[in-house]
Amino acid sequence: MEFMTTTFLSLFWSLVAARGRALVRLPNHTDPVQRAVAYAHELLSERGEATSAARAVALIALYRTLAPEQRHAFHLHLAGHFLPEPQPLEAAAKAYLATPSPETACALTAAAEPPRRELLHRMNIAPGATAVLIQMRDAVLSALPHAPELSPLEQDLHHLLVSWFNPGFLELRGIDWNTSAAILEKLIAYEAVHEIKGWDDLRRRLAPGRRCYAFFHPALPDEPLIFVEVALCQGIAGAIAPLLANGAELHAPPDAAIFYSISNCQPGLRKISFGDFLIKQVVETLRRELPSLKYFATLSPIPGFRRWLEKRLKEGDETLLLPQERAMFGEPALETFRTTLATAAFNGSDPVLKAILERLCAVYLTLATERQSAEDPVARFHLRNGARVERINWHANPNPRGLSESFGLMVNYRYELGDIEANHEMFVSQRKVAMSADVAQLLKSNNKRLQKSAHLQAAE
Amino acid sequence: MEFMTTTFLSLFWSLVAARGRALVRLPNHTDPVQRAVAYAHELLSERGEATSAARAVALIALYRTLAPEQRHAFHLHLAGHFLPEPQPLEAAAKAYLATPSPETACALTAAAEPPRRELLHRMNIAPGATAVLIQMRDAVLSALPHAPELSPLEQDLHHLLVSWFNPGFLELRGIDWNTSAAILEKLIAYEAVHEIKGWDDLRRRLAPGRRCYAFFHPALPDEPLIFVEVALCQGIAGAIAPLLANGAELHAPPDAAIFYSISNCQPGLRKISFGDFLIKQVVETLRRELPSLKYFATLSPIPGFRRWLEKRLKEGDETLLLPQERAMFGEPALETFRTTLATAAFNGSDPVLKAILERLCAVYLTLATERQSAEDPVARFHLRNGARVERINWHANPNPRGLSESFGLMVNYRYELGDIEANHEMFVSQRKVAMSADVAQLLKSNNKRLQKSAHLQAAE
Amino acid sequence: MEFMTTTFLSLFWSLVAARGRALVRLPNHTDPVQRAVAYAHELLSERGEATSAARAVALIALYRTLAPEQRHAFHLHLAGHFLPEPQPLEAAAKAYLATPSPETACALTAAAEPPRRELLHRMNIAPGATAVLIQMRDAVLSALPHAPELSPLEQDLHHLLVSWFNPGFLELRGIDWNTSAAILEKLIAYEAVHEIKGWDDLRRRLAPGRRCYAFFHPALPDEPLIFVEVALCQGIAGAIAPLLANGAELHAPPDAAIFYSISNCQPGLRKISFGDFLIKQVVETLRRELPSLKYFATLSPIPGFRRWLEKRLKEGDETLLLPQERAMFGEPALETFRTTLATAAFNGSDPVLKAILERLCAVYLTLATERQSAEDPVARFHLRNGARVERINWHANPNPRGLSESFGLMVNYRYELGDIEANHEMFVSQRKVAMSADVAQLLKSNNKRLQKSAHLQAAE
Amino acid sequence: MEFMTTTFLSLFWSLVAARGRALVRLPNHTDPVQRAVAYAHELLSERGEATSAARAVALIALYRTLAPEQRHAFHLHLAGHFLPEPQPLEAAAKAYLATPSPETACALTAAAEPPRRELLHRMNIAPGATAVLIQMRDAVLSALPHAPELSPLEQDLHHLLVSWFNPGFLELRGIDWNTSAAILEKLIAYEAVHEIKGWDDLRRRLAPGRRCYAFFHPALPDEPLIFVEVALCQGIAGAIAPLLANGAELHAPPDAAIFYSISNCQPGLRKISFGDFLIKQVVETLRRELPSLKYFATLSPIPGFRRWLEKRLKEGDETLLLPQERAMFGEPALETFRTTLATAAFNGSDPVLKAILERLCAVYLTLATERQSAEDPVARFHLRNGARVERINWHANPNPRGLSESFGLMVNYRYELGDIEANHEMFVSQRKVAMSADVAQLLKSNNKRLQKSAHLQAAE
Repeated sequence: MEFMTTTFLSLFWSLVAARGRALVRLPNHTDPVQRAVAYAHELLSERGEATSAARAVALIALYRTLAPEQRHAFHLHLAGHFLPEPQPLEAAAKAYLATPSPETACALTAAAEPPRRELLHRMNIAPGATAVLIQMRDAVLSALPHAPELSPLEQDLHHLLVSWFNPGFLELRGIDWNTSAAILEKLIAYEAVHEIKGWDDLRRRLAPGRRCYAFFHPALPDEPLIFVEVALCQGIAGAIAPLLANGAELHAPPDAAIFYSISNCQPGLRKISFGDFLIKQVVETLRRELPSLKYFATLSPIPGFRRWLEKRLKEGDETLLLPQERAMFGEPALETFRTTLATAAFNGSDPVLKAILERLCAVYLTLATERQSAEDPVARFHLRNGARVERINWHANPNPRGLSESFGLMVNYRYELGDIEANHEMFVSQRKVAMSADVAQLLKSNNKRLQKSAHLQAAE
Repeated sequence: MEFMTTTFLSLFWSLVAARGRALVRLPNHTDPVQRAVAYAHELLSERGEATSAARAVALIALYRTLAPEQRHAFHLHLAGHFLPEPQPLEAAAKAYLATPSPETACALTAAAEPPRRELLHRMNIAPGATAVLIQMRDAVLSALPHAPELSPLEQDLHHLLVSWFNPGFLELRGIDWNTSAAILEKLIAYEAVHEIKGWDDLRRRLAPGRRCYAFFHPALPDEPLIFVEVALCQGIAGAIAPLLANGAELHAPPDAAIFYSISNCQPGLRKISFGDFLIKQVVETLRRELPSLKYFATLSPIPGFRRWLEKRLKEGDETLLLPQERAMFGEPALETFRTTLATAAFNGSDPVLKAILERLCAVYLTLATERQSAEDPVARFHLRNGARVERINWHANPNPRGLSESFGLMVNYRYELGDIEANHEMFVSQRKVAMSADVAQLLKSNNKRLQKSAHLQAAE
Repeated sequence: MEFMTTTFLSLFWSLVAARGRALVRLPNHTDPVQRAVAYAHELLSERGEATSAARAVALIALYRTLAPEQRHAFHLHLAGHFLPEPQPLEAAAKAYLATPSPETACALTAAAEPPRRELLHRMNIAPGATAVLIQMRDAVLSALPHAPELSPLEQDLHHLLVSWFNPGFLELRGIDWNTSAAILEKLIAYEAVHEIKGWDDLRRRLAPGRRCYAFFHPALPDEPLIFVEVALCQGIAGAIAPLLANGAELHAPPDAAIFYSISNCQPGLRKISFGDFLIKQVVETLRRELPSLKYFATLSPIPGFRRWLEKRLKEGDETLLLPQERAMFGEPALETFRTTLATAAFNGSDPVLKAILERLCAVYLTLATERQSAEDPVARFHLRNGARVERINWHANPNPRGLSESFGLMVNYRYELGDIEANHEMFVSQRKVAMSADVAQLLKSNNKRLQKSAHLQAAE
Repeated sequence: MEFMTTTFLSLFWSLVAARGRALVRLPNHTDPVQRAVAYAHELLSERGEATSAARAVALIALYRTLAPEQRHAFHLHLAGHFLPEPQPLEAAAKAYLATPSPETACALTAAAEPPRRELLHRMNIAPGATAVLIQMRDAVLSALPHAPELSPLEQDLHHLLVSWFNPGFLELRGIDWNTSAAILEKLIAYEAVHEIKGWDDLRRRLAPGRRCYAFFHPALPDEPLIFVEVALCQGIAGAIAPLLANGAELHAPPDAAIFYSISNCQPGLRKISFGDFLIKQVVETLRRELPSLKYFATLSPIPGFRRWLEKRLKEGDETLLLPQERAMFGEPALETFRTTLATAAFNGSDPVLKAILERLCAVYLTLATERQSAEDPVARFHLRNGARVERINWHANPNPRGLSESFGLMVNYRYELGDIEANHEMFVSQRKVAMSADVAQLLKSNNKRLQKSAHLQAAE
C-alpha cells in the first residue's frame, strides 16, 4: 500500500498551500505578475521569514499559473532588482582596490552577493520548486539572446543549480524493464540521438544484452537528468542498425561495451555537464559487473562532417584532395568530387569514395580542433573527456539523417582509463587529438589504401 | 540480501579510489599537508578536470588521515589561497564604481567569486565528501576565534553548505523503534537537552505516546541533522519528569503535542538553521495524523534565568521586587531574597517564592528582549519563529541542572499557526514578545497572587 | 545502483544450481522424463535430504526444459506414484472404522497424507519454483478432462496452493504510472473484460480519476495475481465508453467508485478465489483515502443474457412476454420479438425494446439463480460476495461483444458493507437475490413503464 | 515520511476490526471462551464466508485478550471438534480398504482432511494472525504432555506451519548495526548459546569482522525465525573468548568463517527445521562475497559430554580408560579419575587430563550415535546436515557453563560442500560419523599422545 504515501504527500502539500494562503497575509494585486513580484519581495522580507515555507509554496503555485509572457515579465523584474546593496558594495570595492588582500577580497565577495540568490534559495523550500527553477532557467536561457538584461538572473540560477547538482549528489541508476513507466516514457521523449519508436522499441533497448543508466537527483526523483544507452558486444561495433534492431541475449561473454546514445533530459540544466561523470561511472560499474569487458567505446554520429566538407569544397580548397585522389576524378577534380558526393549512395560498393571520405573524416575529426568553431561538437565532448578517436566506420548509419550529416559514417571514441588524463591534458593544453594507430595511418599513408581501393575497383 | 548492496558499494568506491590513485599522476610530497595542498591545486587545474572524481576521492581519503594540526595547516593554506583573480576583480570593481548598474554589479559578483568555492565543489564529488566538509567547517569554526585568517574559508564553506542544505532538500523522517541502531545511537549521543541514559531510556522516548522526528539530507542518509522529541498529552504538560519517565499508550485521544527537546546533531552545520522548519513541518504532520490535537507547544528550559536574576541581585537592582514583595522579606529585602534563593529547595511548599519567581521569570522572558545580549537563547529561538510565551511552570524540572539554571522553572512556548507571522513580525521589528493572557496577568496584577500566596502560607 | 542486486541474485542462484549439479550425485538417464522422475524420487529420499536445495534447483531447472508432452508424462508419473504407504493407511482406516474418535480420525488423516505433497513442498525450495508449480497446475487442470488419472496430483497442487496463497499472505498494491513496465505489460496481457489497446490506452486507465489495485504474493513479486480497475465518478456510471475514453482529473470530489473490470492473471490459480477479498479490501482502502465516496458498485457485463434469452425464445417459452408486451408485437408475438432482436440496433431510439429487455434482464439476473447452470457467472460471483443487483443499464456497452452477449446492456452490482453478510446468506441458503427497489420495480410494475414507453414512441 | 505508512496501516486494520465488529453479527456470549468458540464456528459457517476477513479479525482480536487458561480451554474445544464428516470418511475408508488404488487413496485423503485446517486457514486471513497461530502452537506443544487430547490440533497447526514456512518463502537477511532496533533487541532476547550482555556486546557481534544472518518470513517481517552469528578468522578458531571479546576489522583476508552461535527465535515453530538451510545459504553467500574463504566450520558446545562421562564413571565402566591411561592414575583408576575430574581446573596445565578427555570426547561424539538417546544434540544436528567432526578444542570455553557441560571443551564441525551428501547418507543409513584425520587419530593411536603428554608432564 506504499502508493498511498505519494497520494498522501501531494495531499499534504496542497493542504499546506491552502492553509498557507489562508495563514499568511499575501499581497493582493489583481495582475498576476505584480502579485508574483509582491510575493517575491515579501518572501525575502523580515515578515516572510517565519512563514517562508508557506510563502514559497504560494509563490511557486502562482508562478506555475503564469503564461510564458507573464513569466518573462516576472523574470525581467527579478533580473533588474534584488541587487547587492550599493553602499556596502561600493565600500567593499574601494577597500579592495585600496588594499587587495584575502580579507578585503573576501569582504568584497560577501558584499557582491546579490539578494536574488537568497530569494531563489527561499523559493526552493517549496516542494517541487527545484523543477520549477529548472524550467525558469530554460525560459531565461532561451530568451537571453533577445533579452540580455536577463543575464544577472541567469547567472544566479546557474550558480545555484551548479551547486545543487554537484555530481556528489547525483545517483546513478540502472534502468531496465522493471523501471517505472513514468520514467521510461521520459526516455522515449528525451532520446536525442536515435529516436525510440514506442514501447516495443524501448523494450528492445532494455533487453538483456543492453544496458541503460541515468543520473537522478534526490529533488527530482522521477526525472532522469541524462541517460546513456549501452550495447554489450563482441568487438567494437561499427554499425548502428544491429544495435537498434534487437537486444538479444548474449551467447558468449561480451568484451565490448558500446555507448551508442547519450541524451540530456533537462534543457534547463544545459551547460551544467554531467555526461563526463556518467560515462566514467558507467564504465566502472560495467567493469565490476562484467569482468570480461575489455573495450569501452562509443558509436557516435559525426554531425558536422558533411557540412564542413561541403563548405570547404564550395570554397574551392584545393588542398582537400591528395594528388592520387585528384587523379581518380580527372579535372576539375574538386568539382567532380563534389558532384559525386551529391549523387552517390554511400553504400559498400564504392571503395574509392570510402577511402577518400574516411581520410577526410579523420582530417575533420583531428585537424578541425585548431579552429574551435568548426570542430565537431560530439568529438569535442568525448575528446575533452579524455577519449581518443578509435575507428571511422563506413556505411555505419545509412539512414537519411546519417547520410545528410556524415555520408553514413560514424566514429568510435574509446575510453581507456589509463590514458584519460594524458589525452585530456594534451587536448586541452596543446589542441592535439588522441587517436588509434589505425586513424593515424589514415592520415599518413593514405596513398596505399587508395591505390589498393582503385585496384579493387578496377578488378570488379 | 539487500545488505550486500551496501557492502558492494563501499567496495566499489574503495576500488575506484585504489584505481584512482593508480591512474592519476598524483603529486608525491612526503609531508602529507604539502601533499594535500598539491592535490588540491591539481584538482582545480586543467589537468585534473577529466579525472576529477578520482582526484577528489584521493584528496578526501588523504584529508581523513590528517591529524588535527595537519588539517589546520591545510585549512590555513585553503583560506590564504584560491583567491579571485586580482586583475579581473580590480577591473570589475572599478567598472562598478564608475557606473553602478545591474550589469556591472553582476560582473563584479562573478569576478569576486573565489576559485576556492569551485575547489570545495569538486572535492564534494567524492563519495562521503559532504560529511568531511561538514567536519572541516566544524574545525574551522572552532579555530576561528584564534585564527581569524580562516574566515575566507569559513565564508565559502558556509556559502556552499547553506546552498546544499536548502530546506527543500531535507527529508523529514519519523524515528521510532524500527529505525536502525546506527541512527538511534546518534540520538543518544546528540541529545542536548535531557540526556538519554542508554537504550532503555531511548526506548521509552520512542514509545507509542511519544514521537520523534528528524531532518535528513540525501548525502548523509544515516546522519540526523536535527531532531525533536514530542510527547502526546492531555493538556499542555507542565513538568518534565512524567514525560521522561514513561511513554505509555494513550487511553484517550491526545489534545496536545509537547515538543520537549530539540537537538542539533552536526556541529559543522551550526548557524545554518533548520529548527524552525522542523517544528512547523512536524506540527503539520501531527495535525494530519491526529486530528484530535489542539495545542502545539514546547516544554522548554530557561537556561539563563537564574544567572540573570543573580546578576541583577548582585548589582543591587532595587526595582526587581515590588513593594508588596519586599514586605514579605523585611529589610534589606534584596539581601534576604538573595539568601533565600541560595538555600531554598524550590519545591511546591513555598507559595511566596513561587509567586515571586514566576513573575520575575515572566519579566525575564519578555523584557529581556530589550537587551539582546541578556535574552534567553531558547526564548529567542522560539519567539523569533513566531511562538508565544504560554505558561511558566513552577517545580517543572527539579533536577540539579534545572535548579541551577532556573530554580526548576520551565516554560511553554506555544505555536498557534494563525498567529505565527504576526508574532514573528512584532518580535523582530518592534521587540515585543507575544504572550498568553496568563503570562500578561503575571506581569500586571501580581499583587493579588502574592497576597493570596502569603495568606495561604500563613494559614499553613 | 540497486539494480545490481537483482543481477547479483540471479547470478547467485545460477551458481548454486551449477554447483548443485556438480555436488549432488544426480541420476543420469538420457531420457529427460526418466531423469526428472529419478530426480523426484531422490529429492524425496533420505539421501537427498541434506542437499535438498541443490536437488530442488536441479529438478526445477530440468522441468523448465521439458516439452509439454514430456511434462505431461512427468505429471502422470507424479499422479500415479508417491501414494500413502498402504499398510499404515489400511491399519488407520480399520482403526477408525472400528472406533471413530478424534484420535483415530487424526491418525487416519496423518496416514492418508500422500508423500507427493512432501515432494511438491521440497520442490518449492528452489527459487522461482512457486511459479513453476502454478504452471504445472495450469497444465494439469487443462489436461484433466482427458486424463482424469491426473486428479490426485491436481488435488495436492490445489491443497498446497490454497495454503500458500492464503489471503493473509497477499499484499494489496496500488498500480499506477509509477509501477514498473514489467508489471504494467502484464495488465495489458491479462485484462479479460475490456481489452487494453496498448500503452496509451493503459495510461488512460491509470489517470488521476482512475485507480487500479492488484494482489501480489511475496513468492511472485512481479506477478499480479488478480487486478481490479476502478473509475471515480459522480454518481453510479451507466455506460462503459466514457470510463474507457479518458481518465481526466476530477473537478468535484467523486461520490462513486465503479469497479469496471476484474481480471485473474494466473490460470494455474483458477478455482482459488481472491476476487472477493480484493474488492472488499479496495473498498476499505478507497473509503479511507476518499471520504467523499458513498457508492461502491461494479459496471459489469452480463455475458449469458442473450444466449439465455435466445434459447428461451427458441424453446417457444410463451411466458417470457407479458400480455401488454405481446400486444406491442402482434401475433405470433414471440416470433416477431425474436426477429426484432435479430435486426435491432439496440441504441437509444427504441423505448419499447429497452423496456422489455431491461425487464427480461432483471428476470434473468434474479430468477436465473434457481437453476445454477443457467445463472450468469458474473452475477454469481458478485451475489455470492454479498452485493446486490443495483441497476440495469441500456445502451451501456454498444460494441460488438456487448451486443452479442447482452444487447449492449450492463449491470451495476452494489457493495453496501452493512448488507453484505445478510445478502450473502440469503443468496447462499435461500437462493434469493438481493436487489434495489428499482430492479424490484422492473420485475413488478412493468406495465406502466411499457405503456409509457409505447406512448413516447407513438408521440415521436 | 514513509513512517506514515506503518501508522496508517495499523490504523487501517483497527478500523476494519472496529467496523468488522459493527458489521458482522457476532455471537454475544458473556464468557469469552464460549464467545471465541462461537466465533470460530461462525467463521467456518456459510454465513461467515462473505465476511470472513472481518470475522477473522474479530476472532484473533478476542483470542489475544484470553488468559492462558482460557486459551487452553479454547484449544481443547478446537482439538475435540471440527473433525472430518463421519459418513463420507467412513465411506472413503471402506472404499479404500475394498479396492486400494491411487483414486481411492486420493478420495480418502480428501475425506480425512479435518475442517479444523480450513478454520485455521481462515483465521490466518486477519493481519498478524500468523504470529498468533505460532503462539497457539507454542502453548499447545507445551501443554501436550499433560493434555494429549490436544494432539489433533497440534497436528493441524504443524501441517499448516510447515506448509507456510516452506524454505522457498524464507528470506535470508544480513543483520548489522543498520538493522532496526526492534529486530536487534530480539537477537539479545533469543540468543541461546552465548548470552548477549546488552547493546554494547551486541554491537561487538555485528562489527566488521563478524557477520549475522537470519531467516525472515514475509508474514512476520520484523521477527527473525532463526539466526546465526559468524566470525571471520584466519584459521579455524579453537576458543570462544576471542570471538566474543571483540569484532575488530580484519587486517588480512580471512580464510575461515566460524559459525559460533545458532539460535531459534520462535518456540512455536520448534520441530520445523530451518537451521540446515540457513547454514548452507550463508555458506554460499559468504563464499560469493569473500572468495578468500576456505573453511566453513562451527565452534560448538558439547552440552552432553560431561553428563555422559560422569554417568559412565558412576556405572563403573572399566572400558572407559585405556591400559596406559589407567596406569597414569593408579588403582582404583576409575575412582581416581573421577575424583580428579571433580576437582581439576581444566586449564592448559594438565596435558594428561587433556589427552584423555580429548580422546573420550572423540569417543562420545562418534560412538555415541549408536545409542540415539545418549548422543549429543548439537552433534546430531550438524552430522545430520552433512558436516564432519573436525577438531576437538581443549580449554575452549572455560566459563562455568562450558566447564559444567564439557570440561571447557568445544568442537568444530566442518561443512565441506562436496562431502555433505555422502556424510549425511553415511550418518543416516549406517550411523557412521564423518571425521577428520586428526579426530580419527585421537580414537586410534592415543597411546603415543598420552606417553608424550606424560613425558612432558614429567619434564615440567
